[in-house]
Amino acid sequence: MATQSLILQPGGYKMPLLGFGTWKVDKNSTADVVYKAIEAGYRLLDCACDYGNEVQVGQGIKRAIESGLVTREELFITSKLWNTYHHKEHVPQAFARTLSDLGLEYLDLYLIHFPISLKYVPMEERYPPEWGNMEQDPVPVHETWAAMEELVLGGKVRNIGVSNFSAILLMDVLSYARVKPAVLHIEVHPYLNNADLIKFAQSQGLQVTGYSNFGPASYVELGSPSAQAAVPLFKEERIVKIAANHNKTTAQVILRWLVQNKVAVIPKSNDPARVAQNADIFDFVLSEEEMATINGMNIPFRLNDPGVYANIPIYA
Amino acid sequence: MATQSLILQPGGYKMPLLGFGTWKVDKNSTADVVYKAIEAGYRLLDCACDYGNEVQVGQGIKRAIESGLVTREELFITSKLWNTYHHKEHVPQAFARTLSDLGLEYLDLYLIHFPISLKYVPMEERYPPEWGNMEQDPVPVHETWAAMEELVLGGKVRNIGVSNFSAILLMDVLSYARVKPAVLHIEVHPYLNNADLIKFAQSQGLQVTGYSNFGPASYVELGSPSAQAAVPLFKEERIVKIAANHNKTTAQVILRWLVQNKVAVIPKSNDPARVAQNADIFDFVLSEEEMATINGMNIPFRLNDPGVYANIPIYA
Repeated sequence: MATQSLILQPGGYKMPLLGFGTWKVDKNSTADVVYKAIEAGYRLLDCACDYGNEVQVGQGIKRAIESGLVTREELFITSKLWNTYHHKEHVPQAFARTLSDLGLEYLDLYLIHFPISLKYVPMEERYPPEWGNMEQDPVPVHETWAAMEELVLGGKVRNIGVSNFSAILLMDVLSYARVKPAVLHIEVHPYLNNADLIKFAQSQGLQVTGYSNFGPASYVELGSPSAQAAVPLFKEERIVKIAANHNKTTAQVILRWLVQNKVAVIPKSNDPARVAQNADIFDFVLSEEEMATINGMNIPFRLNDPGVYANIPIYA
Repeated sequence: MATQSLILQPGGYKMPLLGFGTWKVDKNSTADVVYKAIEAGYRLLDCACDYGNEVQVGQGIKRAIESGLVTREELFITSKLWNTYHHKEHVPQAFARTLSDLGLEYLDLYLIHFPISLKYVPMEERYPPEWGNMEQDPVPVHETWAAMEELVLGGKVRNIGVSNFSAILLMDVLSYARVKPAVLHIEVHPYLNNADLIKFAQSQGLQVTGYSNFGPASYVELGSPSAQAAVPLFKEERIVKIAANHNKTTAQVILRWLVQNKVAVIPKSNDPARVAQNADIFDFVLSEEEMATINGMNIPFRLNDPGVYANIPIYA
């Protein structure tokens, strides 16, 4: 498999366009799933404190390195600062825990998971804290960002970035950042293409990772009524037709559409055959017309909205 | 005419629900139009450096006070900091110019006009600077906000607020503000009801002013193709029907819908008869069903988007 990369600023590090997402990967199978993903050619692993499986991701990584599949330098490991750790004194603490859980000496990328600051929960009380009782404890983004910058200066993370930020808040971060965010990590799929935000981020020198690449599929199992009511992207007839044109799966077409737009992808599957298929997206090219067809499917339909499930309307 | 008011925090000042907007009021007729608006019962005047007519607004105010129509204390005067004055040293300079142009001793409300910082243009070079060459010069919102707070401490403005901010940026301001924003000033009309943003702002103790209350109407004359293509709200059949129910004009129904949602309005007209009509919205009540009908007209269709006309996608 030919892996392609994006170059990150300001450090010049490479970030693979193809990654493996560990959200909702069951703890009991995580080490195995991660090992197999690396075996299948994935070099980027997208992790987070909140996913509750970083210890097991670390075990999978360790096994892959010890068995000679890859070196640490060939991997690109991302994790994310949870909402309960936005105070400047909690940022290094949360980072240290993630690094230790993953069993790593450094991270390639550390992101602010949401522009939402919840009340601190001590680690001995609950880890990961999840959304908890959702009590907000506002911390200025500039305070949290400065603490993220300190991590870079400390040498244990190569790049920092933001997740679930919209353009207006990103503009503000860019106005004061001493270390600019390298990556914007946002929901992107054909039903929510986020074209203007991606264009803006790229114009400012950031690279973009898209999550929930298959749209509703990730949320059906969470019981989301709107996800359940939507036409599954895997069965969307325009995508089915494009897939037939190329003798590819609909999943491959969706991922190809993203990487062809220079958006890194992080599909996840528990099925090893599908994990391998999802990685096989670098041997075909969608035509301009096919790209335009998928670009034209924007509704926009957002699936991950804390305004809905946490009453914190970050997108209003 | 019974004027109703909203109470502003933290100062406890009253802001009238009904205001007169001075955007696009021609300089040559402004003094007269403003005088007549005050005569017709308007007590809030919505002004801005950018509207290019503050000297003339001030003349109208002066005439109204001198002729005994109102006292200064009975009026509520709003103005806005333009995008070229976001640096902390330019905020007091811009404020002083506005105050002097209006011929006032104090403002009731001063707003950051947009969360957009453009390169400084000296006043002797061009005033108002307008969008100019649109060269951006990012200044952190927290720097600009701190300078706004200094104006309050200086005693020449009673309330400060923000305009064209979305929830996520407002949340950030609220996390560090020593003087909380009293007002959020945003586009609101039936085609863009901004319900989630209004609900959020009100939940945080802010009051909301809605501008472009008649939607496309304000933008048709600016040559906006999307505004020209839209069904004019004055002729929208559901609104026409509701207006007939109450023997009111469609404009009055739209304004009533806003104030009934506790959103202050700032209609503008060059026609004195219509100016008077627009003020006559406190003697009838829309039913829950009528409110729901208009709430249900949200598209959302945004008319004032700097992402379109200035390539600064604050709403992406």
